[in-house]
Amino acid sequence: MGDCESEMYLVRVGVAHTPYETLADAPRQGFLSDETATVEVFEEFADGLAGLAAGDEVTVVYWAHLADRESCTNEAGEGAFSRRTPNRPNPLNACPCEVVDVDGRRLRVRGLDAVDGSAVVDVRPTLRPER
Amino acid sequence: MGDCESEMYLVRVGVAHTPYETLADAPRQGFLSDETATVEVFEEFADGLAGLAAGDEVTVVYWAHLADRESCTNEAGEGAFSRRTPNRPNPLNACPCEVVDVDGRRLRVRGLDAVDGSAVVDVRPTLRPER
Repeated sequence: MGDCESEMYLVRVGVAHTPYETLADAPRQGFLSDETATVEVFEEFADGLAGLAAGDEVTVVYWAHLADRESCTNEAGEGAFSRRTPNRPNPLNACPCEVVDVDGRRLRVRGLDAVDGSAVVDVRPTLRPER
Repeated sequence: MGDCESEMYLVRVGVAHTPYETLADAPRQGFLSDETATVEVFEEFADGLAGLAAGDEVTVVYWAHLADRESCTNEAGEGAFSRRTPNRPNPLNACPCEVVDVDGRRLRVRGLDAVDGSAVVDVRPTLRPER
């Protein structure tokens, strides 16, 4: 599905600078880590950061470019939609982080589990379901 | 950016059948609603549902096709990345829902705020940040 007819294409709004060079280095759930990382937001999207401040809880959405998007189940037959594996039809990872500071278009966060160089497609306030 | 060179295109894994015909009908935060909706997962992706059951908390990710993705701020100058507005460079909405039941490839959920007919791109277990 080489989807030029689809309007559902994503733009890179920034790039993640993290301590993790490979998938094996990255923690499985970044929010358990205290490492800091930087989301460098590209010039064109920098005004999107207005209003973010230290201490905010945000979810960084990035493209898991190393993922396998061809299969919907793992070897045990578990479905991708019942798990948070990066191997899914649309390999987006959503990682809850804490804002450490915002310096121009550099957003420093704690807890990002992305491999260094990952394409960031969104940053949004983390929602805590209350129902 | 008519991005055929990008590999960051999304596939539709299903379609949302909801009670909301227009944006004005849809609740701003679906998780406050008790309405039920159905995610009809397409045949090709149906095995991705394996392991989901009534009572599970999932986040349904859908494409907000009515959103404006051209501007990173609203009239008040607030940035898209500090808010959950659908108007953002990559108009993905992530809505926490509760699974009511799974019947074949029909996933019935409570709390989905999507407009009827929205393209669903992912379903994943809701993560509750604990840090």
